[in-house]
Amino acid sequence: MIDDYLNSRTTEINHNLRNYMTLLPDYIPERLKEAMEYSLFAGGKRLRPIFLLEFAKAFGENIERCIPLACAIEMIHTYSLVHDDLPAMDNDDYRRGKLTNHKVYGEDMAILAGDALLNYAFEIMINAGLSLSGQEQIHYLKAVNEITKAAGPSGMIAGQVADIANCNEDGRKETLDFINTYKTGSLLKASILAGPIAQGASQETIDELSQYSEKIGQAFQIVDDILDVIGDQQKIGKKIHSDEKNNKKTYVDLYGIEKSKEIVDGLIQEAFTHLRKCNVDNQNIVDLTNFVCKREY
Amino acid sequence: MIDDYLNSRTTEINHNLRNYMTLLPDYIPERLKEAMEYSLFAGGKRLRPIFLLEFAKAFGENIERCIPLACAIEMIHTYSLVHDDLPAMDNDDYRRGKLTNHKVYGEDMAILAGDALLNYAFEIMINAGLSLSGQEQIHYLKAVNEITKAAGPSGMIAGQVADIANCNEDGRKETLDFINTYKTGSLLKASILAGPIAQGASQETIDELSQYSEKIGQAFQIVDDILDVIGDQQKIGKKIHSDEKNNKKTYVDLYGIEKSKEIVDGLIQEAFTHLRKCNVDNQNIVDLTNFVCKREY
Repeated sequence: MIDDYLNSRTTEINHNLRNYMTLLPDYIPERLKEAMEYSLFAGGKRLRPIFLLEFAKAFGENIERCIPLACAIEMIHTYSLVHDDLPAMDNDDYRRGKLTNHKVYGEDMAILAGDALLNYAFEIMINAGLSLSGQEQIHYLKAVNEITKAAGPSGMIAGQVADIANCNEDGRKETLDFINTYKTGSLLKASILAGPIAQGASQETIDELSQYSEKIGQAFQIVDDILDVIGDQQKIGKKIHSDEKNNKKTYVDLYGIEKSKEIVDGLIQEAFTHLRKCNVDNQNIVDLTNFVCKREY
Repeated sequence: MIDDYLNSRTTEINHNLRNYMTLLPDYIPERLKEAMEYSLFAGGKRLRPIFLLEFAKAFGENIERCIPLACAIEMIHTYSLVHDDLPAMDNDDYRRGKLTNHKVYGEDMAILAGDALLNYAFEIMINAGLSLSGQEQIHYLKAVNEITKAAGPSGMIAGQVADIANCNEDGRKETLDFINTYKTGSLLKASILAGPIAQGASQETIDELSQYSEKIGQAFQIVDDILDVIGDQQKIGKKIHSDEKNNKKTYVDLYGIEKSKEIVDGLIQEAFTHLRKCNVDNQNIVDLTNFVCKREY
């Protein structure tokens, strides 16, 4: 059921992403476009754009306006993976069952393809904003602002830097929470908030959704850590035990598998409490929320 | 004379850049902030923000509005240098007489510091746009759009990819012009256009300034190539003969030093012709234009 839903949304998002790639001018070196597309269409779950469009639908009528935001957030996510996989970073050869970007195109091109995806994400968002006006433009810009902040040094990059440092340190809960909050949490939170913000949702709603998304973000990362220990390599599409190999401490090291699962369940319950306060009745969101903590990939 | 002018503008821009760096939240890992600042304050000429603010002044009254654009463009320029210097790219140990970012902070941090500078540039531009409204916001967004496009896969990155490919190829004039147009030219062009666009300059003016900036961009890059052969290493702050070492073909290979200098003079004359059509009477712009082709660093 959830798989059918996810598949149909993924198809829709892939269609829009492909469309944006065809809008790039012809003079761009073919190899750059190829390297960007290689990682963009390497079989990602598209969870961030799915969240974005689902919350956009639940909190307004202007879904079309949120499509560039959804595509941009997937490009930002992809850029971060391409750079993360580099030899100087996590040095991963496989991602989602396929060779990583730098293994196929070389390190120089992988750096530039990542840069290009990040830049193009902003290009798409800003360009789409030009066709709006008045209050609509202001709401939309606020959503772009949310995404931009989440991607930058106050968001995802702060988490990545802390993650690198954690490789050689004892993992304290505070450090792990910092990494989870920023490295994974920031962009997921922006995915959840951007749609409602772009459509002028009230501050009360945004506050509840912020709380909701923080719980989901934490749960999402802990599930990732659990899957890295007990997951099915085939389903996940990358080697498990990478945290151990890279000497990365996680919740599993601190609490063990069973207790970590309990923590995830608790977080999901808290998330639902905040969601209910928004008076939103949307089964897809409930399913998505559950999927985050029950997923096997 | 021009040196005094450049120094005073550089001081002003550095002040604003420092200000933006202090606005980053305290929780950001200190080492990330340090790595960003290391390259941002490594003694750049600040030509792009100087161009931006000078053209903003010549074509409008709202200079304040253009300061975030000027700072953002310098951050984008710096990010591109940090990534360009990486071992997988140009593999440079020195830049502006100082060790390159990755030599000081390691490759992983240099990749992330570059990413952070690029992200933060967008954050600054978008955040500043939130305080505007109506027609002013639309003009401002158009300027942000110009900068974003120039930095991305249709601009600077297209040029960088072509530049990498050129390392192992015979340099044809068409290839060199493509690289010069995008790698150096795009961001310089955006620096010149952003101020007038942000203040609602007419399409005729923007068209003439586009022509002007294309000539300046080409001249700028050819001077760079000449300096790489006959420049004073001390003044430039990096090793000369790097193009030869990296097997990069330039205008100097195609035409020799003297003919290349003549080409630069011709481009500058053409640039002035377009500038005059804008009816702008600004000695600083004339001096800046001349500086681009007469500079020794």
